[in-house]
Amino acid sequence: MDFNYEIIGTLAAILTTISFVPQVVKIWKLKSAENVSLSMYLVLFTGLILWLWYGFLIDSFSIKFANTITLVLVSFIIYFKIKYK
Amino acid sequence: MDFNYEIIGTLAAILTTISFVPQVVKIWKLKSAENVSLSMYLVLFTGLILWLWYGFLIDSFSIKFANTITLVLVSFIIYFKIKYK
Repeated sequence: MDFNYEIIGTLAAILTTISFVPQVVKIWKLKSAENVSLSMYLVLFTGLILWLWYGFLIDSFSIKFANTITLVLVSFIIYFKIKYK
Repeated sequence: MDFNYEIIGTLAAILTTISFVPQVVKIWKLKSAENVSLSMYLVLFTGLILWLWYGFLIDSFSIKFANTITLVLVSFIIYFKIKYK
């Protein structure tokens, strides 16, 4: 079979990572994050730290790379949520 | 080494999956999702569909299981966002 499974996995990782960009932009533009759940992003942040740890344990570039970028985006959302709540 | 790497990976998957629960509850309680980005959740939904596809391709129970639950939670957020926007 010629089809490379990893193309689907990589595309999936890119989409779930960049999905947070519009939320960062929206909070930044509206200067408000009233309906955005801080609990969600704190639990997500903790989960991403563990994903990053897992990425180092199994030495997976994709897991380390995707989760580092998502951590940065989620950190912005947490910062804005605390600043603008 | 006794330490099982998969414990970290599984814990990471559980946290990033359940993180969406507080956002679902928050929108449902406030009956508002003004600051929640629809674009974020549509891109995330597409990414999760690809993750699920990837899970079937490599036959990974964890990837299939975690992404199915996250898809259900994200679907609720999209539904509420359209209903209450």
